[in-house]
Amino acid sequence: MVYVTRRAEFSASHFYHNPDLGPEENQRIFGKLNNPHGHGHNYVLDVTVRGDVDTRTGMVVDLKDLKQVIEDEVIQAMDHRFLNEEVPAFREIIPTTENIAREIWRRLEGRIGAGQLHRVRLYETADLYVDYYGE
Amino acid sequence: MVYVTRRAEFSASHFYHNPDLGPEENQRIFGKLNNPHGHGHNYVLDVTVRGDVDTRTGMVVDLKDLKQVIEDEVIQAMDHRFLNEEVPAFREIIPTTENIAREIWRRLEGRIGAGQLHRVRLYETADLYVDYYGE
Amino acid sequence: MVYVTRRAEFSASHFYHNPDLGPEENQRIFGKLNNPHGHGHNYVLDVTVRGDVDTRTGMVVDLKDLKQVIEDEVIQAMDHRFLNEEVPAFREIIPTTENIAREIWRRLEGRIGAGQLHRVRLYETADLYVDYYGE
Amino acid sequence: MVYVTRRAEFSASHFYHNPDLGPEENQRIFGKLNNPHGHGHNYVLDVTVRGDVDTRTGMVVDLKDLKQVIEDEVIQAMDHRFLNEEVPAFREIIPTTENIAREIWRRLEGRIGAGQLHRVRLYETADLYVDYYGE
Amino acid sequence: MVYVTRRAEFSASHFYHNPDLGPEENQRIFGKLNNPHGHGHNYVLDVTVRGDVDTRTGMVVDLKDLKQVIEDEVIQAMDHRFLNEEVPAFREIIPTTENIAREIWRRLEGRIGAGQLHRVRLYETADLYVDYYGE
Amino acid sequence: MVYVTRRAEFSASHFYHNPDLGPEENQRIFGKLNNPHGHGHNYVLDVTVRGDVDTRTGMVVDLKDLKQVIEDEVIQAMDHRFLNEEVPAFREIIPTTENIAREIWRRLEGRIGAGQLHRVRLYETADLYVDYYGE
Repeated sequence: MVYVTRRAEFSASHFYHNPDLGPEENQRIFGKLNNPHGHGHNYVLDVTVRGDVDTRTGMVVDLKDLKQVIEDEVIQAMDHRFLNEEVPAFREIIPTTENIAREIWRRLEGRIGAGQLHRVRLYETADLYVDYYGE
Repeated sequence: MVYVTRRAEFSASHFYHNPDLGPEENQRIFGKLNNPHGHGHNYVLDVTVRGDVDTRTGMVVDLKDLKQVIEDEVIQAMDHRFLNEEVPAFREIIPTTENIAREIWRRLEGRIGAGQLHRVRLYETADLYVDYYGE
Repeated sequence: MVYVTRRAEFSASHFYHNPDLGPEENQRIFGKLNNPHGHGHNYVLDVTVRGDVDTRTGMVVDLKDLKQVIEDEVIQAMDHRFLNEEVPAFREIIPTTENIAREIWRRLEGRIGAGQLHRVRLYETADLYVDYYGE
Repeated sequence: MVYVTRRAEFSASHFYHNPDLGPEENQRIFGKLNNPHGHGHNYVLDVTVRGDVDTRTGMVVDLKDLKQVIEDEVIQAMDHRFLNEEVPAFREIIPTTENIAREIWRRLEGRIGAGQLHRVRLYETADLYVDYYGE
Repeated sequence: MVYVTRRAEFSASHFYHNPDLGPEENQRIFGKLNNPHGHGHNYVLDVTVRGDVDTRTGMVVDLKDLKQVIEDEVIQAMDHRFLNEEVPAFREIIPTTENIAREIWRRLEGRIGAGQLHRVRLYETADLYVDYYGE
Repeated sequence: MVYVTRRAEFSASHFYHNPDLGPEENQRIFGKLNNPHGHGHNYVLDVTVRGDVDTRTGMVVDLKDLKQVIEDEVIQAMDHRFLNEEVPAFREIIPTTENIAREIWRRLEGRIGAGQLHRVRLYETADLYVDYYGE
């Protein structure tokens, strides 16, 4: 069993707001993240796939395929996007780093040809990241 | 003469659009950067001050002061902002990395107590940065 | 269950010495780390908290609170300090990376509001880090 | 139980080819990695050892010893080498990142004085790494 | 005048050998770099272009064009190549970091649409880089 | 003319104090840097040498020699040292980043075999560095 991690990056903007709470409560919880104009990040995404090493190729997963799935499912949908407006999932839930990681998991799960999706790690900045293992 | 560089970071969103050009031309030049919803980055700013070393302190510039000037003039204005809408200079000019660096120069110039502002370096991503020396 | 990791940094000095061993033995085991004048590092601390995502906020833990706890419990005590002399725990035990990580765990445990402390990772340099999970 | 990770680096070249497959199949699977002249990388190796903290030294493992084992078993064999030709294991198996990590595990296992080898992480580039836990 | 720097990466292998010198002299000067099997690196290339900011676009140079020129002139020729054998210039001169940087300059000079090529910076590893300004 | 930069690292401790000033003034200027116990950093040193490329070797300077000079003149003197006490120059002048860079210049100048010392860059942290060109 080997774990293979592939990195990708995308730039997006977002803001944090819960419509069920009043403006003061939103401001108190989210502070300047509540600015409805949005602000942005260079997100760094590490996708980890685990599996046995194929003796024919010496690899767990075809990295070109993995890169293509990340491109199709994540980069196309989120790169250079305003997440709150342009990614349907974030019309219902707040696009926090936690929720973006879970959305990325949902988009990738079942799309990895060989091996199994093991972990989605998403950095919002160099100082903050979340890990999601699908459970 | 010693050159001292201090790093700061801010997260902002922007988009590229020239109102004097038609939509096709904007799309051709700017591609997905033209999306009016905006997208964002973790900008990294390196401010360089040059000067003689003060024999009393061993320093070119008081770093607490330098940090405060960067905070007051740049971070307060640009962090967690949609640059096109919330920074007045970018209502007139496109907030490209080049123009943001020049705007930061204008905001810092003359505000450095000791030493002279030498260079503003601004990273939009790890793979792209600009340098501006004020001329 | 999502794992959230927040990074912080502090600069400190230390040296390694076991008073129960003779000077030759200390020198043999610790080499130049045994220099009683001390030497220093820019420590990088990654604190990981795990928990469920709060549907109201989209977050596992309030990051402002987490930052404040790290500030109060670790940065205030260790930043710009000579660890052997100025942090009481290190009068009894040697401030190795391993022991500093465990001391940081003790200081943070039970202070995290939401979620549970999962891991303390401490980098002494870019080439050396330790992980402690509290057991 | 504390986990200690030590980083080392080496530069090597390799290419991917399975002699049981025809040239078109090799080209299809491996693309430009199939170039028999080889190409190269600055590999970054993170070796993790887990164990109890020795109360006499405050350390899990003597880092000088760990560095020496990595030097003797990995760096001497692989640094500035053409892996396919100069490391015997890779005459039989393809020197993919997965297989290099497993070969490094085999070379280090049982050679760690104190503690137990826990994980071998090998970066081929900043965007691709594999983890191997020996099973 | 603004200076814009764009980063690109390629993986290649090489070795150092001067056919006008005997084997002992080659070994003395180049050490393990003289291994004719070659070894490799992840080269990191920073290309800097200087020029005036185009008021129509807010940019010095079209970054898509700059990326394409680097792709066509450098990446296509050097990525996943054994430089000594596969890049004609390095049949005559030794592919040291210095000489690769100068070869990259020659390939890019006169191909930059707007602005002027200012500097080629090439990292062989994180600890070694060269700068070439064309003179 | 090519510029070659070699990186080295050392860990040291220091504190800032001017004996000609009273304790309040020292505290006001230096804040927690004034703590006489000292604190420390992982200093990162980039030494740049400029010169013509030797056609016999393809290099500006023998990197083994350059590494050895940095080792002998800087690392031996400063690594794992309390700079104020253990480096004679810092008994007279405050070991600020500016002054350490100038001391390193003095130690390296005239010791570089081929080429000329061009710049000493010293990082105290990732967010603060100084450049000194010898004048």
